[in-house]
Amino acid sequence: MHRDTMANIGQDEDFDAARKKAEKLGAKKVFIEDLRSEFVQEFIWPSVQANAVYEDRYLLGTSIARPCIARRQVQIARREGAQYVSHGATGKGNDQVRFELTCYALYPEVQIIAPWRIPEFYSRFRGRTDLMEYAEKHGIPVPVTPKAPWSMDANLMHISYESGVLENPKNHAPSDLYQMTRNPEDSPSEADVLEIAFAKGVPVRVTHVKEGKSKDTPLEIFCYLNEIGGKHGVGRIDIVENRFIGMKSRGIYETPGGTILLHAHLDIETFTMDREVRKIKQSLGIKFSELIYNGFWYSPECEFVRHCIDKSQENVEGRVQLSVFKGQVYILGRESPKSLYNEELVSMDVQGDYDPCDASGFIKINAVRLREHNRLQGAAQKKL
Amino acid sequence: MHRDTMANIGQDEDFDAARKKAEKLGAKKVFIEDLRSEFVQEFIWPSVQANAVYEDRYLLGTSIARPCIARRQVQIARREGAQYVSHGATGKGNDQVRFELTCYALYPEVQIIAPWRIPEFYSRFRGRTDLMEYAEKHGIPVPVTPKAPWSMDANLMHISYESGVLENPKNHAPSDLYQMTRNPEDSPSEADVLEIAFAKGVPVRVTHVKEGKSKDTPLEIFCYLNEIGGKHGVGRIDIVENRFIGMKSRGIYETPGGTILLHAHLDIETFTMDREVRKIKQSLGIKFSELIYNGFWYSPECEFVRHCIDKSQENVEGRVQLSVFKGQVYILGRESPKSLYNEELVSMDVQGDYDPCDASGFIKINAVRLREHNRLQGAAQKKL
Amino acid sequence: MHRDTMANIGQDEDFDAARKKAEKLGAKKVFIEDLRSEFVQEFIWPSVQANAVYEDRYLLGTSIARPCIARRQVQIARREGAQYVSHGATGKGNDQVRFELTCYALYPEVQIIAPWRIPEFYSRFRGRTDLMEYAEKHGIPVPVTPKAPWSMDANLMHISYESGVLENPKNHAPSDLYQMTRNPEDSPSEADVLEIAFAKGVPVRVTHVKEGKSKDTPLEIFCYLNEIGGKHGVGRIDIVENRFIGMKSRGIYETPGGTILLHAHLDIETFTMDREVRKIKQSLGIKFSELIYNGFWYSPECEFVRHCIDKSQENVEGRVQLSVFKGQVYILGRESPKSLYNEELVSMDVQGDYDPCDASGFIKINAVRLREHNRLQGAAQKKL
Amino acid sequence: MHRDTMANIGQDEDFDAARKKAEKLGAKKVFIEDLRSEFVQEFIWPSVQANAVYEDRYLLGTSIARPCIARRQVQIARREGAQYVSHGATGKGNDQVRFELTCYALYPEVQIIAPWRIPEFYSRFRGRTDLMEYAEKHGIPVPVTPKAPWSMDANLMHISYESGVLENPKNHAPSDLYQMTRNPEDSPSEADVLEIAFAKGVPVRVTHVKEGKSKDTPLEIFCYLNEIGGKHGVGRIDIVENRFIGMKSRGIYETPGGTILLHAHLDIETFTMDREVRKIKQSLGIKFSELIYNGFWYSPECEFVRHCIDKSQENVEGRVQLSVFKGQVYILGRESPKSLYNEELVSMDVQGDYDPCDASGFIKINAVRLREHNRLQGAAQKKL
Repeated sequence: MHRDTMANIGQDEDFDAARKKAEKLGAKKVFIEDLRSEFVQEFIWPSVQANAVYEDRYLLGTSIARPCIARRQVQIARREGAQYVSHGATGKGNDQVRFELTCYALYPEVQIIAPWRIPEFYSRFRGRTDLMEYAEKHGIPVPVTPKAPWSMDANLMHISYESGVLENPKNHAPSDLYQMTRNPEDSPSEADVLEIAFAKGVPVRVTHVKEGKSKDTPLEIFCYLNEIGGKHGVGRIDIVENRFIGMKSRGIYETPGGTILLHAHLDIETFTMDREVRKIKQSLGIKFSELIYNGFWYSPECEFVRHCIDKSQENVEGRVQLSVFKGQVYILGRESPKSLYNEELVSMDVQGDYDPCDASGFIKINAVRLREHNRLQGAAQKKL
Repeated sequence: MHRDTMANIGQDEDFDAARKKAEKLGAKKVFIEDLRSEFVQEFIWPSVQANAVYEDRYLLGTSIARPCIARRQVQIARREGAQYVSHGATGKGNDQVRFELTCYALYPEVQIIAPWRIPEFYSRFRGRTDLMEYAEKHGIPVPVTPKAPWSMDANLMHISYESGVLENPKNHAPSDLYQMTRNPEDSPSEADVLEIAFAKGVPVRVTHVKEGKSKDTPLEIFCYLNEIGGKHGVGRIDIVENRFIGMKSRGIYETPGGTILLHAHLDIETFTMDREVRKIKQSLGIKFSELIYNGFWYSPECEFVRHCIDKSQENVEGRVQLSVFKGQVYILGRESPKSLYNEELVSMDVQGDYDPCDASGFIKINAVRLREHNRLQGAAQKKL
Repeated sequence: MHRDTMANIGQDEDFDAARKKAEKLGAKKVFIEDLRSEFVQEFIWPSVQANAVYEDRYLLGTSIARPCIARRQVQIARREGAQYVSHGATGKGNDQVRFELTCYALYPEVQIIAPWRIPEFYSRFRGRTDLMEYAEKHGIPVPVTPKAPWSMDANLMHISYESGVLENPKNHAPSDLYQMTRNPEDSPSEADVLEIAFAKGVPVRVTHVKEGKSKDTPLEIFCYLNEIGGKHGVGRIDIVENRFIGMKSRGIYETPGGTILLHAHLDIETFTMDREVRKIKQSLGIKFSELIYNGFWYSPECEFVRHCIDKSQENVEGRVQLSVFKGQVYILGRESPKSLYNEELVSMDVQGDYDPCDASGFIKINAVRLREHNRLQGAAQKKL
Repeated sequence: MHRDTMANIGQDEDFDAARKKAEKLGAKKVFIEDLRSEFVQEFIWPSVQANAVYEDRYLLGTSIARPCIARRQVQIARREGAQYVSHGATGKGNDQVRFELTCYALYPEVQIIAPWRIPEFYSRFRGRTDLMEYAEKHGIPVPVTPKAPWSMDANLMHISYESGVLENPKNHAPSDLYQMTRNPEDSPSEADVLEIAFAKGVPVRVTHVKEGKSKDTPLEIFCYLNEIGGKHGVGRIDIVENRFIGMKSRGIYETPGGTILLHAHLDIETFTMDREVRKIKQSLGIKFSELIYNGFWYSPECEFVRHCIDKSQENVEGRVQLSVFKGQVYILGRESPKSLYNEELVSMDVQGDYDPCDASGFIKINAVRLREHNRLQGAAQKKL
C-alpha cells in the first residue's frame, strides 16, 4: 500500500495541491505534517546552543531538517506497519545519508527504496527532459514554471542553492537567485535594533527596541528573526564544502534568522560561560556540526554530544542588543544576571581585589618551560 | 644606561616627536624600528594561514604585534648588552604576558621591569590626573588633545578599544569611536570587487577587478586591503573575551584587511585542501589562536603548530573573487590549479566515474553501528 | 587560634601520635578526619570512569587526594570561622597548586599561608639538618628513624617516591623502595583470578573466583584490589613527568588496585560503549587527567567534564574476569547485559543480518576522496 | 593473465611451497617479496614515533602490515600492466578496507576483486568443509594439520587471534594459543636488562646490558626485541575492539617487541619533549592510530599527521634502560643530550634559578577565574 508523507518544515509550498497530486498518483494515505514547531525547538535550538557551523561557514539548515522529516516518516511507517520507506534524494548527495541513517537508527528493521540509486531508474531518467516526457505521458502534473538553472532546497531555517550553473565554482551567483533575503544593495538604509533574551542558551524573547514589538514562542521568535534578517539581507554565503561521500560541492545559502542567532548566542555565551568550559564546549560544537552534516543526528555520539552541550548552557542567560543592517549583524551590548564579567575586577581605574604583583609570578612560572626549552635545546639563538 | 626602543608597526604616530621626547627624558640611545614588513610576513601571514580567530571572533591584531615588537626589543637589548628591559603594559592585561614571555623565551637571562606591577609606582599614580600632574611638574611633554574616554591600541592589522566607558558591557560603543573603518551607514553604496591570489596559503596579489589596479608585495597587499576594507566599514566587532589572566573583558576591534583575508583564505583553503586534513588543521588553528592570544608565540608548541599549519598550506593556491560592501565581505567565486573540486564528479547531470549504488553500501555500513546501538540498548523506542 | 587538620586518606600513620604532637605544638583544636570512603567514592571512582592517566602513564594517585583533603580543610575552616589556611607543600611542586586552587574555589575569600614560599622561612631552613636542629631546640618530636634518601607520599590509591637519589633520572630505583607492592621477583608463582562487576562505570563487586570471597562496598573493593595487586607486584612505574609549573620531574609510583581497575574498566567500557562515543569520551578523559594533575578538580571545566564522563558511563555495566600475576593484569573474558558486541553479526561462520556487498560500496565511497586527491594533486606517483 | 603476489612480512611460512602451489594453480608469474626491512622502517618506526595504540590497547600490528603489502602489490600491478587486483580478506573485517583503500589511493584506476564479497562465491563456500571438498576435488594442496579452532594472522610485529571459540567474549583464551611469546608462568625467573638508544624518535641500537650484545639495524633491532620480549611473555592482550565497519570484535594479540618499544619510546619522548608539544602530539598520535586502524595509511590526512609527528621527534634522542620480566617491561632510567629535565631546577635541595614566591602569583592568577565562577555563580556553596 502506497502512503505519501510530506513535511511542512517552513518551505513555501502548496500543500493542498501536493495532497491532490499524491492521491492522483495512487497514494492510499497522504500525511502532510506540520513540523515547524518541533523543527525550531528540537533541531534549530540545539544548533544555536552549539554555535553549529560546518567547516567554519555553513549553518546546517538542510542538515538539521533531514532527521526532523525522517523521524516523522519513520513514526508514521511504524504506526502504519509499513516495512519500506522511500525518498527522492540523489545518489551523490548528503541527504540520502541523512534520511537513511535516521531511518535505520529509529527503525532498524526498515527497508529503504532510493530510486536515484537504482540503475533501472537512473538509467531510464538521465535528465530533466526524460522526466518531463514521462510525466506528460502518464498524466503526472508538473510545475509549469520554467525551472531555474540550479536546484534549491528550502525550509524555515534557510534556502540552499546548488547544481546547474552554480557547478562551476568560478561563476558568480546571479543576483536574482536569493528568495529569503533582500539584496543588501536594496535593503533599508536604516538599521533595526533588536534585543534577544536567552535562557539556557536558547532565545526566549526577541524585542524590536524602537517599535517595542516582541515575540516569545520559539516558532514566532525564529520567524521574526527571519523577517528582520531577510529584510536586511543577512546570512548569505557562497562556499565550497566537503560532502560526507568524499567530494567537494559548491553551495549557496541564505540563513537570515540563524545568522542573527549565531552572533547573539556567541555573545551571550562568552559573557556567561567560563573560559575553559567554553574551549571544551567549542570542540564539542565542532564535532556536533560534523555529525549533523554527515547525517548522524540520531547516533549515540550525537546524543551524547547534545547532552553535554545542553549541560554547558545552564548559565547561558541574559540579553543581547544588536543591530541588523545591510547584510551584517552588529553586537551592541549585553547584560546578564549570570555573567562572569566583573567590571570592577577588569577595570583599569580600580584595583579591586587583584594584586598586580601576582601577574609577575604568573608570567615567571609560565616562562619556566620556555626558558628551559631555549636554554637546553639552544633554540633561542636560532630566532634572533 | 637608558635606551628607548619604539616600533613602527603601522600605527599612526609622530615618530620624530617620540624620538625627541625620549631623548629629552634621558634616553642615551633611541631606536625607532620600522617593523611593518616583517609584521606582515612573519606574523600576519601565518595567522592568515591558520584562520586564526580567538574565541570565534577576535582576529588577534594586538596579540600578534606583541611578539614582533618584543623580539626586536630583545635583539637590541642583546646587541647592546642590556640586562634589563621594560614596558608600559598594565598589570591586569594580556600584553604584559605577551611581551614578557617573548623576552624570556628569546633572552632567558633577561630581567624585566614592569612599572605597573611595582607597588611604589602604581600606588603613586592612581589615575590619569596623577600622571598629568607628574608630567607637568617634571616637564614631560604630553598630548594636549583631551583623551578619549577609552583606551586604544593601533597597528597595521587593527585598532582595539577598551576601558573607560566601554567597561560597562551593556553600553553601546559611540559611533565616532572607530578610526580605521568608515561607518557602514556612510560607506559607499557601490561594492568594490577584488581578486586575491594565494600561494601556499598566503596572498601574493590583490587586484581591483574593475580598476585593474593590483598589489603584489606583502606590505602593499595588506595596506591595500586595509584601505578597501576601511572604506566599506569591514571588520568591526564588539565582544567580551576571556583574558589569559582569568578575567573577562570587553573589547571593540576593527580589522578591515584581516577580515577580508580571513574570508578569502577560508574559501581557497576549503577549495584546495582535503576534508580530513582540514579538520585536523582546523583544530591546530584553534590551538594556534589560543597560544598567540596567551602570549606563547615563541614557545615550542607554537613553533610546532606553525610548522604543521604551514605544511598544510602547500596546495592552498588559487584565486578568489569577492565583493566588499557595507561592512560585509561576499565571496563570489574561486578557481585553482590545485583544486580538489571535480565538477564532473559532483555534477547532478553527469554520472562520471561514480556508481550511485556504492552509496547504498556506504550508508548501510555506516548504519550497522546505529542499528546495533538501538537494538541492543533499546534506544530507538525512546525517541519515537 | 591555631587549629590543626589532618586527613586519614589511607596512609599508614599513627594518628594518635599526630594528635598529641599537634596539641603539644599549640593547636587549640585538632581535626583528624577519616576521608577514606569519600576519597574512594568521590575521587577514585570518577577517575576510574575516566580511565584517568596523565601523560600516558601516571594514574594520578596524589593529584586526586589533594582536593579531597583540601575540601575538608576548607569545610572546617569555614565552620570554625578561620580566615587563614596553611599547608606544608613545597614551592616547586604540584601539590601547592592543587591545595590552593581547591581552597580558593571553595572559599574564595580565604588567605593561604605557604611557609615554603615565604623567604624568611625557606632561607632559614635550607635543608633537613636545619629543621632537625630547630625541632630539637624547641622540643618538637620528630621521627627517630633515619629518613630514606628520597621523599614519599602515600594514600589509599598509591605511594609516590621522588627527590634525593631519585633526582638523577638515570639512577635505577633501589629495589627496597616500594612499600605497597611486593617485588614481582618474589611474588607468588600462581595467579589470582578475580571477577569485577561494574555498574555505571564503577566497580560494585569484586570476587575471587577460586576462593569465592567477594567485596561490595567501595572502600572494601578498593582495599581488596590493593591487597591482591600488592601481593603480585602490580602497578609500579618509573617516569619523568611534566609539572604544572613548567619543570620536568622524575617520579616513581605504585598503584596496585588502581592499575587493576584501569585494565578492567577499559575492557568493560569498550565492550558496552559505542565506538564514536568512546572517542569523544577518550579525549574528555585526557582533558580530565590534565585538569586534575594541574589542580583544577574544583573548576567549572572539571565539573563539566566529570558530568559528561559520568553521562557516558550509563551503560558501562557487566563483569570482567582477569588474572593478576607477576606485576601484570591479564584480561580473560567479559560479559554484559548492555554489551554492544553481537556475536552473530561478527561471526566468520554466520552471515547474519549483514550483506558483504555493502562493504564494497562503503570502501568505494571512502576511496572517492583518496582517489581524487591522488589524481588531482598527483600524489600517487610520488609514493611508488 | 594470473599473477600471484605474496609478501614476506615476517610470518613463519614455507615460501617455496607457496610458490609451487601458486604455479600449480595457474599463476603465470609469482612474486614473493621480502618486505621485512621496509615494514620495520617505513611502517613500524612511524608507529613507534606516534606511540600508536588503537582504543588504548591495540598496537596495530595487522593494520600497519596491510598498506605495506598492498603498496607492493600495486607496484607490481602497475609495472605488469594489470588492471585488476584481488585479495582474500573477508567481507566483515577491517583488512578488506585497508587493502583496498591503499590500492585505490596508489592506483586510482584499479579494479578490485574481493571473492568473499561476491555472492556466487560466498554462497558456494559457506564453511571450511565446502572449501576442503572443493580443494580435494580440484587437486589444490591444503595443509594437512587440523586447523586450530580460531583464525590467526602473523607478521614481524605481532600475531593476532580471533574467531571460532574466541567469538564468545566470555571464553578465556586457551593457554596454548600463543606462538610468539612464552607463557609468563614458564618464562625465565631472571630479568633481561636492555638499553635502547633512540634518535629522532626511533631506535638506533639495542644493547643487552649484561651480555654486552647489541643490534643496530632496524630489522635486527626489532627482531631482537621480539626475541627478548617473546622469551619473557611480553605484549599479550585480550580485547574487544571496534571495527571500522561498525561492529565490535574480540581479538587476542601478542606484540612482544612492539610493546617494549612503546614503553621505551614513551619514556624518552617525555624526557626530551616539551610538555605542550607533547599534548598536541598525543592527540595527533591518537588520530594517527585511528587512521591506520581504519585503513587510511595512504590518505592525505595520514600523510599530514605523519609529517607532523615526525617533526615532533626531532629532539627525541637518548638512551633508556629497562628490564623485561614475566610479561612486563619496567623502565629503570634514562639519559639524553637533548633532555629538558633540569636536575638542579627540580631539586628539593637546591633553589637554583627559581623563586618560590613566583608560584604564589601563579596560583593566585590561576585562581582568579575559579573565584569569580564561585562568587558570581554561587557554585562554591553547593559543594560544601
